[in-house]
Amino acid sequence: MAATDLQTMNIAKSIVDVRAAVAAARGAGKKIGLVPTMGALHEGHLSLMRAAREECDYLVVSIFVNPTQFSPHEDLDRYPRPIEEDLRGCGDEGVDLVFHPDVATIYPAGDQTIVEAVELSTIVEGAHRPGHFRGVTTVVLKLLNIVAPDVAYFGRKDYQQQLIIRQMCRDLALPVEIATCPTIREADGLALSSRNRYLSESERETALSLSQCLQFACDRVAAGETDLTALRQEMVQRMQQTPGVELDYATIVDAETLSEDAQPTARLVALIAARVGTTRLIDNMVIEPTDSL
Amino acid sequence: MAATDLQTMNIAKSIVDVRAAVAAARGAGKKIGLVPTMGALHEGHLSLMRAAREECDYLVVSIFVNPTQFSPHEDLDRYPRPIEEDLRGCGDEGVDLVFHPDVATIYPAGDQTIVEAVELSTIVEGAHRPGHFRGVTTVVLKLLNIVAPDVAYFGRKDYQQQLIIRQMCRDLALPVEIATCPTIREADGLALSSRNRYLSESERETALSLSQCLQFACDRVAAGETDLTALRQEMVQRMQQTPGVELDYATIVDAETLSEDAQPTARLVALIAARVGTTRLIDNMVIEPTDSL
Repeated sequence: MAATDLQTMNIAKSIVDVRAAVAAARGAGKKIGLVPTMGALHEGHLSLMRAAREECDYLVVSIFVNPTQFSPHEDLDRYPRPIEEDLRGCGDEGVDLVFHPDVATIYPAGDQTIVEAVELSTIVEGAHRPGHFRGVTTVVLKLLNIVAPDVAYFGRKDYQQQLIIRQMCRDLALPVEIATCPTIREADGLALSSRNRYLSESERETALSLSQCLQFACDRVAAGETDLTALRQEMVQRMQQTPGVELDYATIVDAETLSEDAQPTARLVALIAARVGTTRLIDNMVIEPTDSL
Repeated sequence: MAATDLQTMNIAKSIVDVRAAVAAARGAGKKIGLVPTMGALHEGHLSLMRAAREECDYLVVSIFVNPTQFSPHEDLDRYPRPIEEDLRGCGDEGVDLVFHPDVATIYPAGDQTIVEAVELSTIVEGAHRPGHFRGVTTVVLKLLNIVAPDVAYFGRKDYQQQLIIRQMCRDLALPVEIATCPTIREADGLALSSRNRYLSESERETALSLSQCLQFACDRVAAGETDLTALRQEMVQRMQQTPGVELDYATIVDAETLSEDAQPTARLVALIAARVGTTRLIDNMVIEPTDSL
């Protein structure tokens, strides 16, 4: 099956080619799914493709390292781009169409339009990466307009990102469903990330402190902790006591508004961002409200 | 025919109703045209409807006074809203669907997403009305997403607006054609505007100075004037010498970039904005390059 899919997988560089392929699929009554990625595909991305494959009849994957979501000092240049391997991965998952545009296709000369969910984009992760989410919403809106999928799939690993994209789609009345799929983790808890390949073996060990800190917070809430302010402080202390970690933030907030002014009985999300060596990692865990509280 | 059209004209307040009506029309193979308006319809709006009626099979007109394109000190509250008269006008023009949403339909609670063509939106008119074009692009994108027309129609009277909307659609890869229709003028040259109804009889007379100043600039270029800097100064002087006029700007710029750094042989546009009494008016004239230069 993988061999057959590889043969029929279409690779498009241009917007017109994507539109033609998707229009043909839609004309055949197919439900269109889009998995937007920056490539360097891992099991997290593949799980999105499998979810899309399950629910849709025509699966589009975009591979585009979006420059506008990187700040000047960030890792745009060294961001991994293993395109051959990525295309093989897509083929193996039965992807129908890979959209792999050049930067000039997405940002043509004179391009100047930005899209921003102004409140959600400037807090938590957004406070540490000014302009990052503006770059995300701008490129995702372009991709949604180009592909016009029925459903677009995002990973919960980028919790704030999927929340912001949902907000954008709601606010702009985009006729698309946003699906969020669970974070995929290694057996020891490390959340999969394209940036994990930057980590040395010892850094990878140190990086476990992120998911462990989140799990600690989840366990405390499950055990009945209602003082979220104190819990936040404990999370920060844990991370600051971990050698080799430079913490950006560790917090627990309302899962919808990302506000620290959260009820302990609400749906919550614990969020963390830290540098391990030169690699910046993020992770999160959602804490569903329990009836027992 | 007007009576029949009135009977079949659909009026929708909700997004789902618009989508259902447009989906049915599209399902019947019809080409969809949208004329976005803030109501207070005049011959300029009607000319857009006629152009759309000519080219499309299903004509949608939106009537929505968009609060986000008004600054706090501007005329949002007193902006005319003669909805009964507007609906009659739409009926007479054979409009198939009027979308007349409440503010909460377009800006639901928690709405926070903005769209901006950042360069074009901050010069000329944008420099005098900060945030205005951001409000325009945001609402127009919402309307385009809700109606999903094949063609959307705008008046050249709002020259910079139609330029910015074209830029937005290009940048965001929106699958819609933007059509710009000529400014409609009274016999004496006054550009039609919903705000003209604010003018007293003597103010209306004074308001003629705007189109006269633009015509003066056009005539000078046609007569071979190549010193645009001097011509701009003459435009400003003319307006400043007109009693009852408070000038915001009078300029002549490149018709694509709106830059004053324009070649006199390029396609140009003369633009003007001024207050007559308490009423702020804008007007423009496009100067096509001539082979004789």
